Amino acid sequence: MKKISVVGSTGSIGVNTLKVVESHPQKFSVAALAAGSNVELLLEQARRFKPAVVCIRDFENAEILKNKLAGSGTKVVWGEEGLIDVSVHPAADLVIFSVVGAKGLKPLIAAIRACKNIGFANKEPFVIAGELIKCLAAKYGVKLLPIDSEHSAIFQCLQGEKKESVRRIILTSSGGPFRRLSREALGRVTVAQALKHPRWKMGKKITVDSATLMNKALEVIEAAHLFDLPTEKINVLIHPEAIVHSLVEFIDGSHIAQLAVTDMRIPIQYAMSYPERLHSNGFPRLEFEKVRKLTFEEPDVSRFPCLELGYEANRRGGTMPAVLNAANEVAVDLFLKERIRLVDIPTKVERVMKKHRVTVQPDLEQILEADRWARENFK
Amino acid sequence: MKKISVVGSTGSIGVNTLKVVESHPQKFSVAALAAGSNVELLLEQARRFKPAVVCIRDFENAEILKNKLAGSGTKVVWGEEGLIDVSVHPAADLVIFSVVGAKGLKPLIAAIRACKNIGFANKEPFVIAGELIKCLAAKYGVKLLPIDSEHSAIFQCLQGEKKESVRRIILTSSGGPFRRLSREALGRVTVAQALKHPRWKMGKKITVDSATLMNKALEVIEAAHLFDLPTEKINVLIHPEAIVHSLVEFIDGSHIAQLAVTDMRIPIQYAMSYPERLHSNGFPRLEFEKVRKLTFEEPDVSRFPCLELGYEANRRGGTMPAVLNAANEVAVDLFLKERIRLVDIPTKVERVMKKHRVTVQPDLEQILEADRWARENFK
Repeated sequence: MKKISVVGSTGSIGVNTLKVVESHPQKFSVAALAAGSNVELLLEQARRFKPAVVCIRDFENAEILKNKLAGSGTKVVWGEEGLIDVSVHPAADLVIFSVVGAKGLKPLIAAIRACKNIGFANKEPFVIAGELIKCLAAKYGVKLLPIDSEHSAIFQCLQGEKKESVRRIILTSSGGPFRRLSREALGRVTVAQALKHPRWKMGKKITVDSATLMNKALEVIEAAHLFDLPTEKINVLIHPEAIVHSLVEFIDGSHIAQLAVTDMRIPIQYAMSYPERLHSNGFPRLEFEKVRKLTFEEPDVSRFPCLELGYEANRRGGTMPAVLNAANEVAVDLFLKERIRLVDIPTKVERVMKKHRVTVQPDLEQILEADRWARENFK
Repeated sequence: MKKISVVGSTGSIGVNTLKVVESHPQKFSVAALAAGSNVELLLEQARRFKPAVVCIRDFENAEILKNKLAGSGTKVVWGEEGLIDVSVHPAADLVIFSVVGAKGLKPLIAAIRACKNIGFANKEPFVIAGELIKCLAAKYGVKLLPIDSEHSAIFQCLQGEKKESVRRIILTSSGGPFRRLSREALGRVTVAQALKHPRWKMGKKITVDSATLMNKALEVIEAAHLFDLPTEKINVLIHPEAIVHSLVEFIDGSHIAQLAVTDMRIPIQYAMSYPERLHSNGFPRLEFEKVRKLTFEEPDVSRFPCLELGYEANRRGGTMPAVLNAANEVAVDLFLKERIRLVDIPTKVERVMKKHRVTVQPDLEQILEADRWARENFK
């Protein structure tokens, strides 16, 4: 029986993680859960999975939960401190992280220091502090298991292979909802249009990032850290069907690809069951006979400049990825508030990046300082 | 330095094996070579690779070779006995087998008994005596490394995975040159047309087998033995681009696929370097950015009944695959001599299969007897 804690249990990754727990009751149980503001759902999850601890962001919501869970055996905690309690809970073997943005970094580091294996769906901590996380994971003997479908695909393709055998990796991208739009049409995209992703149901921030391809840019940086590869060995290819989740090209010319339906339970379950595979109890299945056609095209960096910003930030290294990420978070927030256009996001992010002086080999404080600096200097 | 012997060194697999040896002179050298009748090429190979032994089928050719190679340090042998000498030569770490038809079986078994790792491109021994070969390989601690592009693909996709995790395998097929022909048009196919394969340059027998899909039928049986799977877990899918060389579907819904250009040096080198991968020194490379489209369709068993005969032979088991294989060898030979039509091949093979009484768990003698029986009872 593997005990799982979930940081971000009411988001789509969290909900799907708990579906996997339910579909393999002999294999998994829940140690602790943390959520932001969805008290109702967290309460329901607490009642169903009986974790030792639940955490909610605000004190008021924690009081409501305490009331409702009195006598249930589930302890209620709150705030940043509570989030750390959930991340390091002694009963857990594996902690699944899915927190939007950079704020997942501190609990993630706490979990690694508590020797927990990590399943991570939020790429931001890896983007801004990839080196740091990798060093810590190595020091504490902790496995880093990607849940992002692309990184899970690469991770699966690399099983049984040696790092020296990798020529490059190819991250696939559905291309987002605006793949076919002209530059002019991109200038007129509304928030409602940007929030309709053609393949995946996700949160708002990541859906906008998919529309600008900033999501793919962040994935390039994440992959560089996670698989220890230089920028030029990570390529991006548009694959609208979103069936091939990524590929690895090896030095001998063989390519290994992972394919599946676009259902997050597959990479989530893989991270949970790794190194085993478990039956996909009740998930929809890829009927490969019905696929018939897979298409690929090169991304158009002139219409989607975020991709190039990601490569640039990764080449510059140090604190630059943190600046890219923070500036993007501010820009996406302004877009969602209808204060800037979708096409302004890369322009604004690039402006902040140009002003930034990179600190090399930054520690956690310097990274968080760069993150703050980028937010303060956003114009 | 790995020492390689090649049984069938002047055929396309043999020639490509020696190209791989040449492209990695620090990694590979040649222990022994065997060929059929191409004295010229075998002589050239002997001079270039300086094997300890070469074997040629006929005594007269052996005399010619002895003359030309006098004083070179290369011993010349001939006939079936000579073939065994090459297969068991003490200097070799790995023996690559590529002999057309069932006659490769005895030298293959001799090599296993001499504890040689085996790279095999000729599927017939596995089709007719799969169980036997597997038992012997296990007994002598010998690795069986497939060179067929499809089986190499599956073998690569299974690295780092457990057998219990496999839901099924999907063997891809280019569909052969007559994929789009109607039943009537198939009846008029000439030998010259059948010998033009759209994707691979191969010998005559295997090219005809590709046109009837008998090649794929034999591959299904080979895969069943090699990967220890029941008939119903092996599916075939037509993939005209011949880039995806096969896929494995796992129980969790993930599919892992291997992709590469259609160059036999890739699977040959993989078998030679396994478990390492080596650089593809000078092979053409799959530029995945240029692929753009991969298509798949289900095979039409009504136009290509050989496929169903393969499934049937595998389900019946015992000596039936040997009968299928022998009857097909006779039928292909008659087709190449323009004595029967391409569409008569499955009809004739099926007729022999219907008359056969299966011996279960046959030993080598019973298998060879079934092979003889099928040839004698072919009408």
